[in-house]
Amino acid sequence: MKHFLNTADWTRPDLQALIDDARAMKASPYGEALKGKTVALLFLNNSLRTRTSFDVGAHQLGGHAVVLSPSGGMWPLEFEDGVVMDGEAEEHVKEAVKVLSRYCDMIGIRAFPKFQDWQEDRKDKILTAFAKYADVPVINMETITHPCQEMAHVMALQERFEKDGRGALDGKKFVLTWTYHPKPLNTAVANSALMIAAKFGMDVTLLTPTEEYILDIRYMNQAAHDAKANGRKIHVTHDINEAYDGAEVVYAKSWGAIPYFGNWQEEKPIRDLYRHFIVDEEKMAKTDNALVSHCLPMRRNVKMTDGVFDSANCIAYEEAENRLHVQKAIMKALAG
Amino acid sequence: MKHFLNTADWTRPDLQALIDDARAMKASPYGEALKGKTVALLFLNNSLRTRTSFDVGAHQLGGHAVVLSPSGGMWPLEFEDGVVMDGEAEEHVKEAVKVLSRYCDMIGIRAFPKFQDWQEDRKDKILTAFAKYADVPVINMETITHPCQEMAHVMALQERFEKDGRGALDGKKFVLTWTYHPKPLNTAVANSALMIAAKFGMDVTLLTPTEEYILDIRYMNQAAHDAKANGRKIHVTHDINEAYDGAEVVYAKSWGAIPYFGNWQEEKPIRDLYRHFIVDEEKMAKTDNALVSHCLPMRRNVKMTDGVFDSANCIAYEEAENRLHVQKAIMKALAG
Amino acid sequence: MKHFLNTADWTRPDLQALIDDARAMKASPYGEALKGKTVALLFLNNSLRTRTSFDVGAHQLGGHAVVLSPSGGMWPLEFEDGVVMDGEAEEHVKEAVKVLSRYCDMIGIRAFPKFQDWQEDRKDKILTAFAKYADVPVINMETITHPCQEMAHVMALQERFEKDGRGALDGKKFVLTWTYHPKPLNTAVANSALMIAAKFGMDVTLLTPTEEYILDIRYMNQAAHDAKANGRKIHVTHDINEAYDGAEVVYAKSWGAIPYFGNWQEEKPIRDLYRHFIVDEEKMAKTDNALVSHCLPMRRNVKMTDGVFDSANCIAYEEAENRLHVQKAIMKALAG
Repeated sequence: MKHFLNTADWTRPDLQALIDDARAMKASPYGEALKGKTVALLFLNNSLRTRTSFDVGAHQLGGHAVVLSPSGGMWPLEFEDGVVMDGEAEEHVKEAVKVLSRYCDMIGIRAFPKFQDWQEDRKDKILTAFAKYADVPVINMETITHPCQEMAHVMALQERFEKDGRGALDGKKFVLTWTYHPKPLNTAVANSALMIAAKFGMDVTLLTPTEEYILDIRYMNQAAHDAKANGRKIHVTHDINEAYDGAEVVYAKSWGAIPYFGNWQEEKPIRDLYRHFIVDEEKMAKTDNALVSHCLPMRRNVKMTDGVFDSANCIAYEEAENRLHVQKAIMKALAG
Repeated sequence: MKHFLNTADWTRPDLQALIDDARAMKASPYGEALKGKTVALLFLNNSLRTRTSFDVGAHQLGGHAVVLSPSGGMWPLEFEDGVVMDGEAEEHVKEAVKVLSRYCDMIGIRAFPKFQDWQEDRKDKILTAFAKYADVPVINMETITHPCQEMAHVMALQERFEKDGRGALDGKKFVLTWTYHPKPLNTAVANSALMIAAKFGMDVTLLTPTEEYILDIRYMNQAAHDAKANGRKIHVTHDINEAYDGAEVVYAKSWGAIPYFGNWQEEKPIRDLYRHFIVDEEKMAKTDNALVSHCLPMRRNVKMTDGVFDSANCIAYEEAENRLHVQKAIMKALAG
Repeated sequence: MKHFLNTADWTRPDLQALIDDARAMKASPYGEALKGKTVALLFLNNSLRTRTSFDVGAHQLGGHAVVLSPSGGMWPLEFEDGVVMDGEAEEHVKEAVKVLSRYCDMIGIRAFPKFQDWQEDRKDKILTAFAKYADVPVINMETITHPCQEMAHVMALQERFEKDGRGALDGKKFVLTWTYHPKPLNTAVANSALMIAAKFGMDVTLLTPTEEYILDIRYMNQAAHDAKANGRKIHVTHDINEAYDGAEVVYAKSWGAIPYFGNWQEEKPIRDLYRHFIVDEEKMAKTDNALVSHCLPMRRNVKMTDGVFDSANCIAYEEAENRLHVQKAIMKALAG
């Protein structure tokens, strides 16, 4: 049995095969690969795209999604082993997962970090528990990484570069830029964007305001490892001009600085200094006609100007749409 | 591409064709008109009938409804254009709607007024934004009008008058009566009842406690226009006897007086004076054996007595059931 | 028209026929018995298993479940007849149920007691109202009894005893043991376990800390009546050794003592004295290799130790899985 927890667990050719299948289904959306099957989608955090695209995707393949969330009436769960459960939790994750495995053919889980202690959050304990206890395939619907988003992004880049006659991803200058947001956000999409860009052979530049916004060493190392295998490197810079100069892809995302986890009041004045990291027309002018994207939801005129977002080079809607197609390919592959 | 935003956008023959199809599907409910298709139902307010009937209707036509709501885990939305989104909203309605358009074949939206400023509420900003940004048909599931309810009401009247051998709607005396309710409610169903009764050729009387409870000029004018085209007029009265005398249809609804939007403490003592507008047996005795209805949910013995509601002349359940059938006809028409 | 409100309304052969059909569907899960049909699932309380298993079950039979809850955006309901509805409730249960009957082919309802006044709770007013007003079959998804759980439990016992060559349920020593839980819980599963064990011919022992934890006389009497019909008796004891000695089935459940309804602060120090009622390895060693189960969710190491729960004799997962199969059989039978 295979899970879809992180792209790092999959080879580039296997991921490309999923994307190729997604492109085939984009052209021809209906099928019976999930006929009679159900996928449980457990959301411990908000969702619009993920919830809708998995639900629609299951239906288009003849299957059915069951959407669950604690705010939607689920019992609170315990995630530790061996504990005397006399606190708030009414049920251990083991039972929830084992029972869902009896009812459903697949389980998707969204569980954002708690933003109090990165050493704790980086264990990705909930996803790990689901993968450990499930007797059916588990899909990561965003925890501390967001592999479905990565796949949709690469698919959108490949489609657009092909259409524009600009060729394969290998060697393209890919800039992942931190942007301002009034709240500290999950690093999941940033971790994922970094890794997938490296895995697909791009020349990756990570642009952050300071060293403190560099991503967790686990993902920096994974990206470096994959970049090296492709004969590339990961560049880190705090210089906006250097990053944007000649860029062919700009991917915007905000995230909280890891050293300040649980101490966000202290981070706030620092992040407030870097509102100018917004992706705007002036910065885009320095690029090599770069494609630009964001995973959505996105605060307009905070992370990216209306002008850039609504420009022809922005592939955010294609990327969002591709969530549907790649997730269908992933469900199909896991179902069997 | 056609939306179903307001009946005013549709001709009477086109609306009648939808009702005729709804009656055909009431007799024969299953079909494949929505096979493989999905409709996103976005609820910014509570619902029982609308949510259930759209969901069931989609299934009966081979399709699938995805039910979304902010309380059910959606991101808070921004509705203004060009704004710097550094407040609560995480996503602009444009992205939400554009992305839903990529996943789904149709979008239903429920967005009640905010009851603070009618000049603002009457812009129907959310519905307008959905219609503007959507790349798929949009259905009004109640904003400041409730066109699906109108259709179900006309269908129920036509069915019952036919069955009772009382002929067509044209020229029937239709009374829309304000009733008491402890809270100020949306004028949507009242606006809609007024317009559809006029459009289908009835002789419309609007009964309100005072002039302040008369409906917005936009809907009064639309109804007057449609009444005139049918050779009728809209009568406004505050005299209960005059209204009920010879009535053939009584439609009950409570709503907040427009001049008091955002100032409800001042309206409360006024509305409290008019508890006697309840639809009761004594009033019904003055009518010409009138059919009576309410859109539900309805507070028993506040808006209508148990005796009237549970009488054979009450068509509220038929009207509620017809929501299912007319919405199927609407979805079918928009999908196809 | 038949409802599935309580197993007491059904004969043992009819219940066995449902279980037999459930076992057939466990081996061969897909069918078309609910093709085009919908079941409304109304949850006034939390759920994981019930919500998921009904939803999946409906899908596997070609049907569709519509999940509704007040926290999920339903209007608050009134349950009294003849009342002037000028309080919080916007809609009478009669309308909600009558209208759902027009949209759906079946209605499931979960409505836990309010835990303030057992004389009030024991009327099971919501379930009774649904059965009274519905024009389609109603299924009890747990109110003050939990008949679907009973069926799943009996099915799991029959499967395991057959597999182990230990024969039929008749005459087996069945122990229903109260266990500690930090909160006072619903007696529903306890009432149900007691009744079904008696109905299926087991020799039932009810183990409680004190007389105050004995179950409501209605269920004690029903169980005694069914036990007698099978030539057995209901034994009540507060002696742990006596109960476990030679037991062949141990069913664990916590519940609040009926005399303390609405007065839980007074019960708390009493229940706190009986933490040692936990099902542990030492107690299980006194049994005749008993099967052990719990309805889930279960607090590990509070109601049952990890050692017992994770042992081969524990059939809690089978019982949970069987919820899916028995509910499919029930829906099929009610759908006709």
